[in-house]
Amino acid sequence: MRADASENTLAVIGCGVIGSGWAARALAAGMRVQAWDPDPDAVRRFQKNIDTAWPALVRRGLAGGASREALHFFTDLDRALQGADLVQENAPERLVIKQTLLADIDARVPEQVLIGSSTSGITASELQAQCHRAPGRVIVAHPFNPVYLLPLVELVGGQHTHRDQMESARAQYERLGMRPLIVRREIEGHIADRLMEALWREALHLVNDGVATTEEVDAAIVYGAGLRWSLMGTFLTFHLAGGEGGMRHMLEQFGPALKQPWTRLEAPELTPELIERVASGSEFQAGGRSVAALEARRDRFLGELLEVVERYWPEQEGLGGRI
Amino acid sequence: MRADASENTLAVIGCGVIGSGWAARALAAGMRVQAWDPDPDAVRRFQKNIDTAWPALVRRGLAGGASREALHFFTDLDRALQGADLVQENAPERLVIKQTLLADIDARVPEQVLIGSSTSGITASELQAQCHRAPGRVIVAHPFNPVYLLPLVELVGGQHTHRDQMESARAQYERLGMRPLIVRREIEGHIADRLMEALWREALHLVNDGVATTEEVDAAIVYGAGLRWSLMGTFLTFHLAGGEGGMRHMLEQFGPALKQPWTRLEAPELTPELIERVASGSEFQAGGRSVAALEARRDRFLGELLEVVERYWPEQEGLGGRI
Repeated sequence: MRADASENTLAVIGCGVIGSGWAARALAAGMRVQAWDPDPDAVRRFQKNIDTAWPALVRRGLAGGASREALHFFTDLDRALQGADLVQENAPERLVIKQTLLADIDARVPEQVLIGSSTSGITASELQAQCHRAPGRVIVAHPFNPVYLLPLVELVGGQHTHRDQMESARAQYERLGMRPLIVRREIEGHIADRLMEALWREALHLVNDGVATTEEVDAAIVYGAGLRWSLMGTFLTFHLAGGEGGMRHMLEQFGPALKQPWTRLEAPELTPELIERVASGSEFQAGGRSVAALEARRDRFLGELLEVVERYWPEQEGLGGRI
Repeated sequence: MRADASENTLAVIGCGVIGSGWAARALAAGMRVQAWDPDPDAVRRFQKNIDTAWPALVRRGLAGGASREALHFFTDLDRALQGADLVQENAPERLVIKQTLLADIDARVPEQVLIGSSTSGITASELQAQCHRAPGRVIVAHPFNPVYLLPLVELVGGQHTHRDQMESARAQYERLGMRPLIVRREIEGHIADRLMEALWREALHLVNDGVATTEEVDAAIVYGAGLRWSLMGTFLTFHLAGGEGGMRHMLEQFGPALKQPWTRLEAPELTPELIERVASGSEFQAGGRSVAALEARRDRFLGELLEVVERYWPEQEGLGGRI
């Protein structure tokens, strides 16, 4: 999915690491970027962050017309918002700051312009609460670091948002080369951060209990499941683990293990409804491909991935970790 | 880490998916494999599994002298164990079956020969309980699917195991091209499965609560954190998220979020001792490299990875998922 959003203008509101990442991604997609930060000194760090991102974006391939010259920095909010086709807000993660800023942006920007917030923890309805002009177009658009390379963006609408605004948002972020994930319900942490937090808390317990060092916990991911996770999530992975019977067989065989108190996270009851939802979902993802075909695909991918990632393993950099 | 264990013999005890994976890995490393299964029909599935694995191993590059002709299947246990330099047990995951079988193997194999069990859930001390000859050399050696490609193997000794036996085990599995992770304490699920289970249970809750489909949960990993996890685990990732201040800054800034009830997993208290352990561990992993250097390394890797993995995204295979 190559980015191409040329002749559009993105307003980047707040120029920290996340704002810089959005700006770099948009520039590489051929957009004009109008960045705003209340701190005049922010421009130096901002430019430095773009310097960091740019070589990776050049290696990825720039869209036609992409240029760093298309970047403009303002300390005046009106000038940054002028003519924007999309606004991306990246202010500090505090409710009052974001509500005040978004109400201000909402009052200044034409009603049809989408306003996305990079918030990881605040719901869209909370973001919309102080907006009086067109609150429905104020949504969560939560990216992942580094924003200029990782394609995932979680889109969440609030109580004022209509379905067609979400579809329009999906199209706009796709033009930035992203994979929008529309989240069905407003929930703290959306989806991805909840999954990462569950793993992170278990990791902290292992270190706290003296079972493993941080290096060992990381190695347990990097040399195992982590190699699969850039291709397949847990559900499709377990669908393969079930053999030709797929997820249905896997749940029959390993479902009881969910009741073991391995982790400090309580599992839901495996009701017939949940089994059906999980199994039919996994079968949809398999897309009619047999488990054998999915295994062959996985193995081709892992072979190519290992060729790449082995060049980054510690011993290649002269580091002497224990794993 | 290329595998080369030529002129050694691996006894593979139990020839299901995991046993087949060990056999394929050992053959590719140039070993002779003597496989045993009590079911004479097992040999057909076993050969079929090796057929599946072999093309990926050929693409990876075989060790000198590697040959599928070095594979021998027996229904007689003594013949499979004869002259083995390493025994790998892959019987069904039931305590009584494994204890009986391992006691039998222990009685037949010279004392210096290591006996690894592929168990994911049984502790090494339980495995050793019925072994009377040399119980200390009976250890957990837990691999990850597909065993012939994923390098991680968790090694856990039991109450009878000495440190030098673990060091010897590490060397033997390294010769099979693996990255042995020696687990410091006997704990249910070892390390990797505990981390994966925490994520899996949270994923089940999201599906159960109607927040996301299985496809959406998988997408939230595959297009985001999953792209990083083949390079860096959670600790090193968060070390980068802390900017030049690294993990110490990150824990100060985001530590309080651990107390939010996002997931159903309770977090440990961030005591000064835990902060010190996590921060100094992450700094060790950084190996003296600045955060900027680690970021540049990550971006080079992600660029190369995206070139590979994008060719496997659903639209390349004519699939029409929503993300």
